[in-house]
Amino acid sequence: MSFPEYLKTRKAAIDSVLPTYIERLNAPKIIKESMLYSLNAGGKRLRPMLLLAVLHSYGKEEKIGYPVACAVELIHTYSLIHDDLPCMDNDDFRRGKPTNHKVYGEAIAVLAGDGLLTESFRLIADAEELSDRVKLTLISELSKAAGAEGMVGGQVADMEGENKQLTLKQLEYIHEHKTAKLLAFSIIAGAIIAEASIEEINKLKEFAYHIGIAFQIKDDILDVEGDEEKIGKPVGSDEENKKTTYLSVLSLEGAKEKLSEHIETSKAILQTCSINNELLLSFCDLIGEREH
Amino acid sequence: MSFPEYLKTRKAAIDSVLPTYIERLNAPKIIKESMLYSLNAGGKRLRPMLLLAVLHSYGKEEKIGYPVACAVELIHTYSLIHDDLPCMDNDDFRRGKPTNHKVYGEAIAVLAGDGLLTESFRLIADAEELSDRVKLTLISELSKAAGAEGMVGGQVADMEGENKQLTLKQLEYIHEHKTAKLLAFSIIAGAIIAEASIEEINKLKEFAYHIGIAFQIKDDILDVEGDEEKIGKPVGSDEENKKTTYLSVLSLEGAKEKLSEHIETSKAILQTCSINNELLLSFCDLIGEREH
Repeated sequence: MSFPEYLKTRKAAIDSVLPTYIERLNAPKIIKESMLYSLNAGGKRLRPMLLLAVLHSYGKEEKIGYPVACAVELIHTYSLIHDDLPCMDNDDFRRGKPTNHKVYGEAIAVLAGDGLLTESFRLIADAEELSDRVKLTLISELSKAAGAEGMVGGQVADMEGENKQLTLKQLEYIHEHKTAKLLAFSIIAGAIIAEASIEEINKLKEFAYHIGIAFQIKDDILDVEGDEEKIGKPVGSDEENKKTTYLSVLSLEGAKEKLSEHIETSKAILQTCSINNELLLSFCDLIGEREH
Repeated sequence: MSFPEYLKTRKAAIDSVLPTYIERLNAPKIIKESMLYSLNAGGKRLRPMLLLAVLHSYGKEEKIGYPVACAVELIHTYSLIHDDLPCMDNDDFRRGKPTNHKVYGEAIAVLAGDGLLTESFRLIADAEELSDRVKLTLISELSKAAGAEGMVGGQVADMEGENKQLTLKQLEYIHEHKTAKLLAFSIIAGAIIAEASIEEINKLKEFAYHIGIAFQIKDDILDVEGDEEKIGKPVGSDEENKKTTYLSVLSLEGAKEKLSEHIETSKAILQTCSINNELLLSFCDLIGEREH
């Protein structure tokens, strides 16, 4: 199967499984609608696909990872809903569609986020084909990656840095926490499920750090060089919002150099792992070359 | 040890352990401060104390339940922070102190709630003295009690019922979900940790439902008959906010009758459980007779 075909079939699988975890809930109609609205709003499903790709690379059945892959996407979606709120980034549109609070109001948007976050842990705890030890390791790692030591902390640092020119170190703190830690979880979750050695998991953590930062640098580049239709928001919005980006710190050329450095380092780490690394190498290229 | 002494020592134990789970986090200063502000804002610690009391009733060491007892209090605290937000109940004061968003701003308040919720699952996953199976059962039950099928769903129904005269059935849906399910979790968590039989856990679930509803009826009565200083908010605020309460549906006398019915039923259920029920019987009286 070609890489584009792999991506297409896995995205379709995630797109079809993901909503079932919310549809089955016995809960007020409006909150289910609101949760499903954002879940089905056209995400790339990068995090769940990375998890499945790691399982594939270990020669494991990808299906056993579905609940965990979907749990990560629930967390990612909750974070977008809360980040878009008027008291945070105050965004009216995401991926070309009105944001959750524009459709359902702020209160339901807050609660939809809370509900998605809560449900994500249930998905893992109730996953049928994983051992108890694997599930607890996943829950512990996910809560670290998503909580105050991870994504929540990154969002705090991001807000504190608004309208300030940050140093590269401060910028990397933000993106490591806000973006890379959850991406890294997706990757190590695959290895945890495959019961890889601690040594190998640590290597993949480092691999994930580099593609996580690369992902963010590419985001900043796309904000200047991207196609508005493809990225789903106006080009140049970072500069307009006076955000510190890799471009404002390193210049466009410097950012591109840094991007390839991170991609190359991530590929080099993969070469030292005892897995079939072909698929993950393709993901590295995808992250460096993506158009949205 | 007398019951008041039991309460005093256990509240002190929870008060001293609870903040340590947040203080140890490697996270931006402001988010830790905000989480700790609400955690230390003078809660009654009813939920953690119930969990410890159930363990005690099974003759178990209470200490093994601390992380789970604290996890429930983290969830309770997150729900108060989010409920107080301007887009929800818009409350400026809670327990006589400015609410989290009045001190730290809305964005940090949303994130502090998110962080507390996330951390609660980590506390359970990392609890040292519990078996893997027990921990996963707890995480699954907690996420059901706190998520869209539980507390989050109850808050949605509560908001949808604003400025409407609800039926008793609608009112009970709200309180069962918004309050009773998390209280019930605290109680059955003790039984799960004590590895009680499913039959016994189901009995305690029913016991918990009745004291959860009793707790809420008493809340509504205190809103009319309470001492402002003790309850920490103005008397009569429910009527002013046009909230449907047990009093507006049943009258004050009817509500008092319903309260004793639920208390009596809960006590009757306790008599059928194979535990030393003295302590929990005292809790039933406390809930019926509390002044704040």
